[in-house]
Amino acid sequence: MVLALERRIGKYAVLLSMSTEKDEFIFTLPEHWGTCVGKVGSMDSQKVVAAIETAAKREGIIKSDGYRETHALYHAIMDALSGVTRGQVQLGSVMRTVGLRFAVVRGNPYEEVEEGDWIAVALYGTIGAPVRGSEHETIGLGINHI
Amino acid sequence: MVLALERRIGKYAVLLSMSTEKDEFIFTLPEHWGTCVGKVGSMDSQKVVAAIETAAKREGIIKSDGYRETHALYHAIMDALSGVTRGQVQLGSVMRTVGLRFAVVRGNPYEEVEEGDWIAVALYGTIGAPVRGSEHETIGLGINHI
Amino acid sequence: MVLALERRIGKYAVLLSMSTEKDEFIFTLPEHWGTCVGKVGSMDSQKVVAAIETAAKREGIIKSDGYRETHALYHAIMDALSGVTRGQVQLGSVMRTVGLRFAVVRGNPYEEVEEGDWIAVALYGTIGAPVRGSEHETIGLGINHI
Amino acid sequence: MVLALERRIGKYAVLLSMSTEKDEFIFTLPEHWGTCVGKVGSMDSQKVVAAIETAAKREGIIKSDGYRETHALYHAIMDALSGVTRGQVQLGSVMRTVGLRFAVVRGNPYEEVEEGDWIAVALYGTIGAPVRGSEHETIGLGINHI
Amino acid sequence: MVLALERRIGKYAVLLSMSTEKDEFIFTLPEHWGTCVGKVGSMDSQKVVAAIETAAKREGIIKSDGYRETHALYHAIMDALSGVTRGQVQLGSVMRTVGLRFAVVRGNPYEEVEEGDWIAVALYGTIGAPVRGSEHETIGLGINHI
Amino acid sequence: MVLALERRIGKYAVLLSMSTEKDEFIFTLPEHWGTCVGKVGSMDSQKVVAAIETAAKREGIIKSDGYRETHALYHAIMDALSGVTRGQVQLGSVMRTVGLRFAVVRGNPYEEVEEGDWIAVALYGTIGAPVRGSEHETIGLGINHI
Repeated sequence: MVLALERRIGKYAVLLSMSTEKDEFIFTLPEHWGTCVGKVGSMDSQKVVAAIETAAKREGIIKSDGYRETHALYHAIMDALSGVTRGQVQLGSVMRTVGLRFAVVRGNPYEEVEEGDWIAVALYGTIGAPVRGSEHETIGLGINHI
Repeated sequence: MVLALERRIGKYAVLLSMSTEKDEFIFTLPEHWGTCVGKVGSMDSQKVVAAIETAAKREGIIKSDGYRETHALYHAIMDALSGVTRGQVQLGSVMRTVGLRFAVVRGNPYEEVEEGDWIAVALYGTIGAPVRGSEHETIGLGINHI
Repeated sequence: MVLALERRIGKYAVLLSMSTEKDEFIFTLPEHWGTCVGKVGSMDSQKVVAAIETAAKREGIIKSDGYRETHALYHAIMDALSGVTRGQVQLGSVMRTVGLRFAVVRGNPYEEVEEGDWIAVALYGTIGAPVRGSEHETIGLGINHI
Repeated sequence: MVLALERRIGKYAVLLSMSTEKDEFIFTLPEHWGTCVGKVGSMDSQKVVAAIETAAKREGIIKSDGYRETHALYHAIMDALSGVTRGQVQLGSVMRTVGLRFAVVRGNPYEEVEEGDWIAVALYGTIGAPVRGSEHETIGLGINHI
Repeated sequence: MVLALERRIGKYAVLLSMSTEKDEFIFTLPEHWGTCVGKVGSMDSQKVVAAIETAAKREGIIKSDGYRETHALYHAIMDALSGVTRGQVQLGSVMRTVGLRFAVVRGNPYEEVEEGDWIAVALYGTIGAPVRGSEHETIGLGINHI
Repeated sequence: MVLALERRIGKYAVLLSMSTEKDEFIFTLPEHWGTCVGKVGSMDSQKVVAAIETAAKREGIIKSDGYRETHALYHAIMDALSGVTRGQVQLGSVMRTVGLRFAVVRGNPYEEVEEGDWIAVALYGTIGAPVRGSEHETIGLGINHI
């Protein structure tokens, strides 16, 4: 089980989350990989979780029915939120807000076929006080087997 | 205090930490910004902290004497480690190890001169069991005023 | 101060919390021990705390007036919630919900009379997304001197 | 995806971890489920993780090679340790020690075949000062898809 | 960079937060230092953060515009709240409330002029159940460069 | 159960921990209260815990035998350490060290006799890099029924 260089699922997710119209990263994902991206801004951490889950299901990255894939995605989201919040996974309750672009990538990042699919959730954007401009960048990445 | 698009200090730090000889991101940093990069692999979180601090001082990103800038860097490192470890800032004590590339960037990411210098610490690499290949990617970013 | 085998207060609390009409654990508690059980389902962690405190006071497991016993119970509940939530003691704010059966047991689990009364709070049930069936089991146990 | 009553994987794991020669819980696991039990006592959390991983691989509960199943087991262990330590996943560094019996159970706890295998790790025993008898009971349960 | 004995910024902040009309600590702060004090009682951690930020800006301890000083103060508040809450930075969501007196002090606590200004936030008061009298004392101190 | 103004056990503990030969706080504790003070400096959190426990037992603040009072003191120490470390209860593993003066106070801070004895642990000193002077002040307070 060796991480294949050209299958860095986390790196791809991070680059997708940092891509903008003016500043896009161009790369080719391995065949049969799935991705979705989106945006969410909120003081409510619940809305961040919901936005990513909804997008991933709508885009067919994970199955809409059944619990298994939802469980895998949920913990990848929570891990990514840990990086964004650094300590307490709280936003409004400690008076801060986020503006995030998220990317979800699904595929096998290992050289061995048996490792199966994994899922990466990357969040990139800003965190700060609920005052325009009182914010700095933040990033988070969660990776889980699915 | 608006984050200037072309001065995304965190994004630059992340790209530097993800750059490799084979896969390099080419960009021009704003004038007078300072950066350093390095590598550290360990089951000992203390060594990760020390490696980054030593590099940042040796490369002149922060002042070697005095406490102020060391304090700013330290908390940026701890924030970055939160993203890498996602929950408990522990490595060997919960039987995991990291192989990280780090980047430290210093500069003013805001449009206003009065915001002064900020420091960004990005960590990118792998985390996993102390067995070759039993690992997945991980990322962390810490940003602080300095 | 040796934990007496037949006075395993935590084990009893866990078994009570896992008992159902169809699947009941039959055992005899030591004399003069007090117990109460109940159910609570919520996305609001505050309601879980309140349900257990209310039941324990109503059933006379702890004194209704005074702070001392309430303080002991509160921290036993928080410890039990740590096991249920595993990391962040948050439910709705990270978009998850619990359906729990709780048991509170009070007595002296040690061979020495001087150890006095202790209190055990056990929580057993499910945790998951606010979608029927998207859940798995969870357990938590908190023990405190009272 | 409904949790089947007679396939409560977490409950089985907890009962196995609380079984002793004198006080055994008798029940029949669903067909094709795998289990292993063991004991570990330490002030070093790393040893607890290692003991469970080693047992689960030796007994064939998870595959010895490949990362996927190791990753699933690792996070189930960490979740179980959260319940045992309730806050900081630390033992010796905050001067406490554990004496635990662990159980690992693998199987599908849901009514739907598509939910596939899940893994439950239960830890039951004592936590306390490194002085005989200065301890109380503790429990932890982690459940993950595998 | 040596902490000057008569410039113990944290000690001064703590004493100010513990001062009452009947029980006042009399001392002379170093020249040019700024302080403000206030009170806040809430089950809502957001209100605690807001009360301190508002007071510090209104009293001119930090600049009202710009992000830099707000960022420094915010993290000092969060550190102080960690001491008050001891574990999870949560109040109402785990059914507890605080009644706090806060003090913010700004100045250079070091012998070297180059260390510049630092900010100390001290919180002292009570934490407990939302029932009069069901509470005990609590304290927190956060210190940051500014 | 009302906290009596002249029996602020936490305030007394904090003042004792901040007292020095040159800067002593003079006050009279309520009758029959017990106190002890001491110093500990370490990168090893275990040594901080041990120093306080040893002093409290040697000075007769808590009983040397039996678990009950040791358990009460231990959690008061852990709460105080939370305030000192603000997030992760770790010192050397995240490359920082403390120099602390501790105070333990035992007595009933409430107006009602039935509230019995409580214990307060206060820690005051410095935390920082393992380099002389690279440190700032820190405080922590833990209060528990005993």
